[in-house]
Amino acid sequence: MKKRTFPLSRVYQLLEPGPVVMVTTARKGRANIMTMSWHTMMEFEPPIVGCVISNQNHTFGILKATRECVINIPTVELAAKVVGCGNTSGRSVDKFKAFGLTAVPASRVSAPLIGECYANLECCVVDTRMVAKYNFFVLEVLKAWIDPLKKEPKTIHHRGNGVFMVAGRSIKLPSKMK
Amino acid sequence: MKKRTFPLSRVYQLLEPGPVVMVTTARKGRANIMTMSWHTMMEFEPPIVGCVISNQNHTFGILKATRECVINIPTVELAAKVVGCGNTSGRSVDKFKAFGLTAVPASRVSAPLIGECYANLECCVVDTRMVAKYNFFVLEVLKAWIDPLKKEPKTIHHRGNGVFMVAGRSIKLPSKMK
Repeated sequence: MKKRTFPLSRVYQLLEPGPVVMVTTARKGRANIMTMSWHTMMEFEPPIVGCVISNQNHTFGILKATRECVINIPTVELAAKVVGCGNTSGRSVDKFKAFGLTAVPASRVSAPLIGECYANLECCVVDTRMVAKYNFFVLEVLKAWIDPLKKEPKTIHHRGNGVFMVAGRSIKLPSKMK
Repeated sequence: MKKRTFPLSRVYQLLEPGPVVMVTTARKGRANIMTMSWHTMMEFEPPIVGCVISNQNHTFGILKATRECVINIPTVELAAKVVGCGNTSGRSVDKFKAFGLTAVPASRVSAPLIGECYANLECCVVDTRMVAKYNFFVLEVLKAWIDPLKKEPKTIHHRGNGVFMVAGRSIKLPSKMK
């Protein structure tokens, strides 16, 4: 893997713009992938991420049991596979095989990274207080990876019903915001 | 105001792509604005939104006390004002006046809408369990407004340190996802 480690202090820069992500989990030697858009940063460092994973999803039970996952961030080249993973269930499909994605061992968790995604965040669950009511998990990012060659990644952003906005140009403004 | 009411069942389509938003609050006849990027959808309908508002922000105390706000979604034409609101504090600045923004009365809450934003979501706080630890508020959207002429809004998405990605082209894929 040609990825480099990415500073935890800058992880918020990857998730704050709201990209669709692919969450990987693993249990009993079997890995799964789900597509997710409902996430937010909650703290800069260590990076804390909140996300909603429906209890209808196969991933929900695995994440509750293992308390580990990887958030993988795809770019537009992977859009068809992202949607494919969203349209199928890990109960009946090996998604890595079905969509030709590469499971790469992570360093801190047992769930694999998706090799084709330009960034990968190894996470553990740190708070489950809001799981019962909102399916809302609080994750801490333990380790982050990035493809150093992707400078302005064309992430995709879900607008509902299969319409995705593709990341456009960047502008710089004199902000004091972190 | 030439805005139309927008169905609550589709509010997720506005926030899911991760735009920077401007949160308005009001107390004792004085309205305030803050710029925010850390938010996520939590439920489709009624639309539930989770967001982090730092206890360092003037808005934090107002929101805790009044339990009402409006989430206003700006497009790139407003970028300089969005950053201006992020660089200043309502403790010392009347941001509507300082940035030439129009406060429009809301229908369900006392906080005003920002007239220049293409969409506005009137919200009340419904869960404060995670405020103490994460500054994380859970909001319910009571009423939504949209400018019907903005078909593919050029929202802005923060990448950190004043760099914003501007919403690019749209693609449609055969998704079963809502």
